[in-house]
Amino acid sequence: MNAEILAIGSELLTPQRMDTNSLWLTDQLNTLGVELTMKCVVGDDRDRLTAALRDALERTEVVIVTGGLGPTEDDVTRDAAAAALGRSLVYRQDLADGIAERFRRFGRKMADINLRQAYLVEGGEPLDNPNGTAPGQWIDHDSRIVMLLPGPPREMKPMFSHHCLPRLEKRLPAQVIRTRFYRVAMMGESDLDALIAPAYTKYANPVTTVLAAPGDVQVHLRARCATAEEAEALCQELGVQVEALLGDRIYSTDGAPLEAAVGRLLRNRGETIAVAESCTGGMLGQRLTAVAGSSDYVLGGFVTYTDALKTQLLGVEPALLAEHTAVSEPVAQAMASGARRRTGATWAVSITGEAGPESSTGAKVGTVILGFEGPSGPGARTVHLFGDRDRIRTMATQAALEMLRRQLMA
Amino acid sequence: MNAEILAIGSELLTPQRMDTNSLWLTDQLNTLGVELTMKCVVGDDRDRLTAALRDALERTEVVIVTGGLGPTEDDVTRDAAAAALGRSLVYRQDLADGIAERFRRFGRKMADINLRQAYLVEGGEPLDNPNGTAPGQWIDHDSRIVMLLPGPPREMKPMFSHHCLPRLEKRLPAQVIRTRFYRVAMMGESDLDALIAPAYTKYANPVTTVLAAPGDVQVHLRARCATAEEAEALCQELGVQVEALLGDRIYSTDGAPLEAAVGRLLRNRGETIAVAESCTGGMLGQRLTAVAGSSDYVLGGFVTYTDALKTQLLGVEPALLAEHTAVSEPVAQAMASGARRRTGATWAVSITGEAGPESSTGAKVGTVILGFEGPSGPGARTVHLFGDRDRIRTMATQAALEMLRRQLMA
Repeated sequence: MNAEILAIGSELLTPQRMDTNSLWLTDQLNTLGVELTMKCVVGDDRDRLTAALRDALERTEVVIVTGGLGPTEDDVTRDAAAAALGRSLVYRQDLADGIAERFRRFGRKMADINLRQAYLVEGGEPLDNPNGTAPGQWIDHDSRIVMLLPGPPREMKPMFSHHCLPRLEKRLPAQVIRTRFYRVAMMGESDLDALIAPAYTKYANPVTTVLAAPGDVQVHLRARCATAEEAEALCQELGVQVEALLGDRIYSTDGAPLEAAVGRLLRNRGETIAVAESCTGGMLGQRLTAVAGSSDYVLGGFVTYTDALKTQLLGVEPALLAEHTAVSEPVAQAMASGARRRTGATWAVSITGEAGPESSTGAKVGTVILGFEGPSGPGARTVHLFGDRDRIRTMATQAALEMLRRQLMA
Repeated sequence: MNAEILAIGSELLTPQRMDTNSLWLTDQLNTLGVELTMKCVVGDDRDRLTAALRDALERTEVVIVTGGLGPTEDDVTRDAAAAALGRSLVYRQDLADGIAERFRRFGRKMADINLRQAYLVEGGEPLDNPNGTAPGQWIDHDSRIVMLLPGPPREMKPMFSHHCLPRLEKRLPAQVIRTRFYRVAMMGESDLDALIAPAYTKYANPVTTVLAAPGDVQVHLRARCATAEEAEALCQELGVQVEALLGDRIYSTDGAPLEAAVGRLLRNRGETIAVAESCTGGMLGQRLTAVAGSSDYVLGGFVTYTDALKTQLLGVEPALLAEHTAVSEPVAQAMASGARRRTGATWAVSITGEAGPESSTGAKVGTVILGFEGPSGPGARTVHLFGDRDRIRTMATQAALEMLRRQLMA
């Protein structure tokens, strides 16, 4: 079975924005064995979208449309889909009631234009949207399937997973997929690939995918077989080899991000953590607390952006700052010690460095010092990062979390 | 004049890869006043690409194809273009000589398959490629233009700049683009649209685009005219109306995010800020310090995830916590007061609330309290947010920044 994706929105035709929904959707479709044969971005133009939908329906069995389901004049997906399929739009009182109820629940007044979202392409099924006002639509058309999904990823993804995936599965030949998933922090993509390629290139099935983000590489194995046993056995056979090669560099086998892996270790040990941040300004605390239930082990911490606050809040000696500057291992270590002492946490981690674009201490932009103190004493290490301010700060928090993970496993 | 872009390559239809060439090309086209009306990704499939090219030529004046000009079997762009235009492919000895010469220059042996790159769509002009073996092609077809460009950005970009841009300029009527840009925080997209639609729907030029993200709406006006004066006058005419309707809700007219707008106000007033965060765990500090140069006004702050740290680090009275819980206006206010007192900042902003998925205080998930203290005293307000943990935390920091902005302007 083949699919096409149409992403709707004039903003996606500007130099600043991209359709990224289609990447996630492609992954979902591939998991089912559905191949993506084309994807297009169309602006908020009713006639162009109608024509594009007609063309897509001539070429392919499944057409997924994302975006253009909002309440405003330039949201044209409902109209265009009805026109392309030669069907009318039907006002559904139950959908209108649902939208009105949603506004009531949040204590907001519903604008009249929101009722546009209560129109359904005749014969289509509405798809519930717990995260927004726009219902999705699933339309069977001859032997074709058309899905209309909202553009915001947090609305589109759960809708596809809960409503579209099960419906699609029923249409597909039986096929079982088993996967293995590994995440590794602070290792270059090409280094990692060079390490594991000798193992995975021997296999066409499972398919191996290596995905890199700043400071983070994901390895995905996916076996497709007629039976669960075959798929599981193939995954296991290659998985064992990959695990042996990567060893304790693997921090997650279930997709959980590094902050969750660290959180799990802390929770299992019944220990707590505090942070002391300079150049990252709160990002490390934000990441640690992004994990639901992190109040089990995160106590809190300090953002000490100025030297004065490093002294006042963390007790870093002014003489130490004067001698070594704020971007130094002695200061990073003193920050961690201060944070640990003043919060009573089992562990404290500190970050200080030059995130750029200018350097204030004379240290090279990208120089970041990570400090820590745990039950067996303090320590610090220096890392040299590159990229823009955001990348350096993200990498700094990633390096700090990986350092803490290794301390927790030591 | 309108354009479409076709990006060719099966790898661009995987979950891992995107066509980014089109972003750069769109920027180049927009500068000339050429509008991108659609863009598509097509795999390495001759028939699909032929059909996609035919469809594009029916819709639009300029079709730019990137990729698929390599020497291998799955490079099908030349074949498909010839088929779509109903022309033959002509072997050009001069192109073959050029490719052979390039191989000689780098001391490499040319494979026979490279001679495929010496075929030109009949009537087309070859475009020189100093950075690769694949020549580009410029084809005039009736009143249409088709460009075939190589996929690698370092080959495509110089070819477009040196050969395509000058040719396009000659075809275009003189046209100038002027824009206006507004950002508004914590206002619903449909409420904002209802407010300004009466003004902008009167104008087909400028084109108005409304874009929403959690807690943030962007309004974009773009006028295209023969002269800069006309375009500027149209932007001004509509801009004045939009500005009057949105008033001081507009926090940015140059695209800067809310944390930068707040930072600018603080810098202009020579004032400083400290934060005290509970449920956002550092995200507010992280956002404030994401702005380059924020050390001019950010002192630092506190992450007090536990009640004990709210007392120890910020001096919030245990009795206050016991009476009102941590998710209350008195506690939020006391957190801000404590942060201001202990850092000496002009302003302090606090955030405490239930980000979910579970509630620890009994307050409903999404209940967030924002506290502040400035030169004229403390205050607090309660907001009710919805969505998942990440959205609630993002909205909480957005609401806190907007509250601070209004305090700074008061």
